[in-house]
This record gives sequence, C-alpha cells and structure tokens, in this order.
Amino acid sequence: MNNNRIERVLAKMEEKNLTQMIVCDPMSIRYLTGIWVQPFERLYALLLKADGKHTFFLNHLFYIPKTPFIEVWYSDMDDYVGMIADAVDPEKPLGIDKEWPAKFLISLQERLPQMKTVLGSDCVDDCRAVKDAEEIELMTEASRINDVVIERAAAYVHDGITEKELADFIDAEYKKMGCSGNSFDTIVSFGPNAADQHHEPDSNAVLQDGQCVLIDMGCVWKNYCSDMTRTYYWKSVDDEQKKIHDLVREANEAAEAIIKPGVRFCDIDAEARKVINGAGYGEYWKIRLGHFIGQVDHEKGDVSPTNTAVAEPGMIFSIEPGIYIPDKYGVRIEDLVLVTEDGYQLLNHVDKKWKVLGE
Amino acid sequence: MNNNRIERVLAKMEEKNLTQMIVCDPMSIRYLTGIWVQPFERLYALLLKADGKHTFFLNHLFYIPKTPFIEVWYSDMDDYVGMIADAVDPEKPLGIDKEWPAKFLISLQERLPQMKTVLGSDCVDDCRAVKDAEEIELMTEASRINDVVIERAAAYVHDGITEKELADFIDAEYKKMGCSGNSFDTIVSFGPNAADQHHEPDSNAVLQDGQCVLIDMGCVWKNYCSDMTRTYYWKSVDDEQKKIHDLVREANEAAEAIIKPGVRFCDIDAEARKVINGAGYGEYWKIRLGHFIGQVDHEKGDVSPTNTAVAEPGMIFSIEPGIYIPDKYGVRIEDLVLVTEDGYQLLNHVDKKWKVLGE
Repeated sequence: MNNNRIERVLAKMEEKNLTQMIVCDPMSIRYLTGIWVQPFERLYALLLKADGKHTFFLNHLFYIPKTPFIEVWYSDMDDYVGMIADAVDPEKPLGIDKEWPAKFLISLQERLPQMKTVLGSDCVDDCRAVKDAEEIELMTEASRINDVVIERAAAYVHDGITEKELADFIDAEYKKMGCSGNSFDTIVSFGPNAADQHHEPDSNAVLQDGQCVLIDMGCVWKNYCSDMTRTYYWKSVDDEQKKIHDLVREANEAAEAIIKPGVRFCDIDAEARKVINGAGYGEYWKIRLGHFIGQVDHEKGDVSPTNTAVAEPGMIFSIEPGIYIPDKYGVRIEDLVLVTEDGYQLLNHVDKKWKVLGE
Repeated sequence: MNNNRIERVLAKMEEKNLTQMIVCDPMSIRYLTGIWVQPFERLYALLLKADGKHTFFLNHLFYIPKTPFIEVWYSDMDDYVGMIADAVDPEKPLGIDKEWPAKFLISLQERLPQMKTVLGSDCVDDCRAVKDAEEIELMTEASRINDVVIERAAAYVHDGITEKELADFIDAEYKKMGCSGNSFDTIVSFGPNAADQHHEPDSNAVLQDGQCVLIDMGCVWKNYCSDMTRTYYWKSVDDEQKKIHDLVREANEAAEAIIKPGVRFCDIDAEARKVINGAGYGEYWKIRLGHFIGQVDHEKGDVSPTNTAVAEPGMIFSIEPGIYIPDKYGVRIEDLVLVTEDGYQLLNHVDKKWKVLGE
C-alpha cells in the first residue's frame, strides 16, 4: 500500500465532497496498493472511504497477498453487486471509476435507486498524472530503450521488407532489452498507409523506393510506458514530403518550446496548430496534439484545444502533431515530455529532422 | 454488414421491449457490421434502432470503409456524448452494452435524466453465443491448431526449462502456424504454482522432477479463439497426484457426457461438481465449470451452478474442472465443446489421461 498516494486521492475526494468512491481500473488499484490483478470480466473494485475504512472486493480466484483493507471475497455464484450495495452509504453520492462497465454500474443503480452516482476517477487520475520520482525514473528508462530500439529499427530497414517484418523486429528488440512487452501494438506504415493513424502493420505491404516509413512504438519497462514516433523515407524523398516533414517538426518544436508549469494545455496545442493551420494543412490534422501516459499508453489528460488545465511539474505527456493526406502519405513526430520545475525535459532524444534511409 | 445477424438482434430487442440500444463492444460491432476498430479510450458506438435507422458514432481518426448506417463523425474536441443524446429517444428506455464505461454512461445519464437506461447487451451476446457455420469452422480450426501446438509443447519440455521458456515456445509455435496471436496470455505453471489458476509464467521457475506441468493455452485464428488445458508430470508422478488427476478427468468427462440441446448449464456444472465434491475435494474447486468463447476467450455465458439457461445447437464453451491445493499443486483439464443437434462434439482431441513426460 502506498499511503501517500491514497492520502493524495482522499484529499482530492474531499475537494469534490465525495466520501466514497469505487476504483476499478487495475492500474489505479496497483498505483494505490501495489497489488496487481487482471480481473478479466470479473468484478474487481477498491471502495475508498473518507473515514479510512477502505474495502476491497475480490474474487476467490484472484491470488493476492494479505492487504491492510477490509476484504470482501466472493465467488462467481455470489451476489457480488449486492455486497457492494451493502458496503456503500446510499444517502451519499458514490464516486465511480470512469472505466467501470455498465454491467456493474447499472446493476448497482437498480439496487440503490436513491443513491447518486457521479464520475469520480479524476481524484485518482489527477494524482496519477503527476509522476513521483520513482515513476519518472522508470519512464525515463522506458524512453531510453525506445530511443535505442528505433535507431536499430531504422538501421534494419532493407529492400523488400514488409511493415509486419519491421514491426516484428521492433517487438523482438524490446524483448531482448528486457521489456515485458509493448505499450501498444507497434505501428509501421509505408507510404499511403501512413495516412491511417492507427494502421496495423501489413505482411503484404512491401517497402517501395520514395515511400515514407512511419514508426510509432512504445515499450513497457517495469509497468511504465514509452511512446515515440518518427517518420523516415526510403532511398529518396521528394520536395513535398520534405516540406511537410519540416512543417510537422516545426509544429512539434514550437509546442514543446513553451512547456513549463502554469501553461495551459490548450495553449501548447495552439502553438502546433498555428504552424500547421498557418501553412494551410489544418484539414489534414484534426486530432489533439498529445496524451498523458504512464502505466498505460493513454492515461487521463490530453493536450488539446479544449483542455484549459495547466501543466504541473511531474506531468508526462506526448507531443505528436501530424499531417495525414489520404491515399498519399502521413507524417507524425512524437516525443514524450516531462514538465520540470522551470520548463520541460524531453524523454526522447532521437533526431527529428527528415532522414533518408538506405541511401 | 451482416443483415441476418442484425435482424436476430432486433428480434431479441423486441422481446425485451427495447426500441433502441447502444452497442460498444468492438467485437460485437464487428460481428454485426464486419467493421473492426480498436477505439482505445475513445467513444465508439453503434446505436441500433427498431425502425432500422442505425447510427454509427465514429471518431475522425477511425479508418473504416463506407457503411450503410447513419454516420455521426466527431473529433476529440466535440461534444460527442451530446451527439448521442440528440440521436436517442429520451422517452423510451435505452439498452446499454454491458461493457460501456461509466465515463460515457454517467455523462449521458446526466444529460438525459428522464431516460431509463437498462442493460441491453444480452440481445447481442445471446446471438453471439450461438455460432453460425462460418464461426464453427473457424473455431474448429483454432482448436485444431491448439491440439497440434500443445503436443509440440509437451515434447519440448526438458530438464532445466523454466515456465517462461515453455510459454514463449508455445507463443512462437502459434505464430509459425499463422495465428494472429494468443486468445489470452499463455499459462504455464510448475508444481505449487499450478495452485494459482491465473499464474503468470515465471522465468525463475525451473522444472523439478515430480512436478506437475499445467499448460492453459489458446490462439486466435482469423478472429476466433481456442482455449485448452492439460496437466502433465515431469519424470514421475506420485499416487496422490494420479488420483487427483483421475478425479478431475472423471469430472470433465461426466460433465461433457450429458451435453445436448435443452440441458441446463447448472446441470452440466452439477455433474462435475458431484464427482469432485463427492471425493471430498469441493473446497479446492470453487469456481464455475466453464465459460463461453468466440471472438474473445471469455464471452457472455457460463457453465455454473447459477446459470439455468439451456444449451442450444451452435453454442461453444469450455468444460474445465480443476483441483487446486495451495502450496502443493493444481490440476485442470479443459476442452472446448460444441453443442450439436443431438449431443456435443469436442473441439479438442488431445488425450486427457495423466501422462509423465521425460521418462
């Protein structure tokens, strides 16, 4: 149990006048307790209470050490939603984890129709967004590994390679480096496939001269994630692709340059958007500039035109502007950034200028 | 779009007096439309309507072909919950997918407090539970591959092997066979680790003579899953382990023997439980006998003491009794079973009798 983290969450609950809250995200529970369970479809919940009587709802097939919480164990045949109903105070609002599936939430709402249910997981997520020293160290290492592996991947590109082969190479390198896995499925996109931001590597897509090679990749190092994108070119690059790549890099660097505590995320986003919209490519970039990251690749929080929250020291998020032209190509340049006391620090150090491979 | 599947779902909605329903499970949407999107944290929903005006809520970064539905595209900066609120009839109950996260559900409930929200995904899940000919063919092949790979894995076991090495071997064999991946993380448990039903393969757990080798594994073949468990012994097996293995096999076979259309799942479960409880091992097996399976390893539906539904032709589920003795060992024997017109058919054909490897 990480007492300090639980105390931080309880303080945030108090600000929102919440005396009770269901936490179900296994990563949030690990963050608060050190305990890891993959519940699959089963109920797994930590009920946090302002009075400190935290209650853990556990299926008999979860295998965990003894905890300092009140433990309520159930079997698949038990009325486990009823057990939660018995443990909460129906006269007070109940904070709900944003990920709690409807199957549990609606069942509980039907059981206690008088109880107000409100979204409450910001209390945990806003703590998770600000990394402590231990987390910063792990994420720095995860990004260092990412830097090493993308350089190896760029060197591995060869005539006749398919997207799938390059993605498999990256995944195998992560394993060699001792990573437990990927923070998301590796994206390798050649040429027009790069216009699809979530393209899946195709074993039939063979690299052609002059195509872009977009690589978006991340590993998991001791439960913490990295995430980076670079866009290369094979054998040659035409002027239009150079121009667009320079533009995306400029947007990336302009946004990063203003990061420091107190700056609003919408203003960081605006810096990048100014560059891309100003050059007339706004219609080819409609998504947010970045996302928070930690135990999962996408954590709560983003760098977008609508997020008026401000950066705080310890926050880590991506800056990933892009230009995606259907049927032609795409460019994305992504780093992870740590907010420091007086500015920012990049967690990725791989050169961002366009680069032709295999020359 | 699979018109026939959508029609079956609409018929089930009518039985439940539902005229509108949110489907969000990407596998359910693929089942109904043929379209695959991995939405991660973003809203992705198909609103099914009794009048046929189905509406698809899509983020601009999803990349899909043209659909025959009303398409509502949103950006991260849009009020997408508001778009759903505008598309539903607040005077009628809205069926909700059991997996819909609270972040969308509570936001919609706050927007339309007068609208009743009810769990509705049984309408889709009960269709998904009964496989059609195309699905049966794919799942038969997925289990055939599983049969081949487990025999190779058993032959690969050697002195000094760790759980992790054996699990990695299995995963690599799946890839060689052309599978897209695993239906769940391969479980390999030696000796006492087998008492933890969800044990993760340990790279420090080296196989010792006389230990059990529990392997629970499944692959994904063209989007459909397999899942099988066998428990072997290394070099030797003592009488107590033989006895327990025989008992679990007897429970497995007794349960399978009564499967046919019309038989209640609780009665199938009871056959296995009778054997294990009768021998005095009930306290070491507290979970359900089996689960449904299809596009994911665990689909809605189970073989448990509380499920009074009856088997129908086309249903596929696991039968997996076990005995788990803490700090000593565990035994589980699992097959997938297809309900046929007049009985059942096993999808796994690997011998179930206890077997000593490396003799």
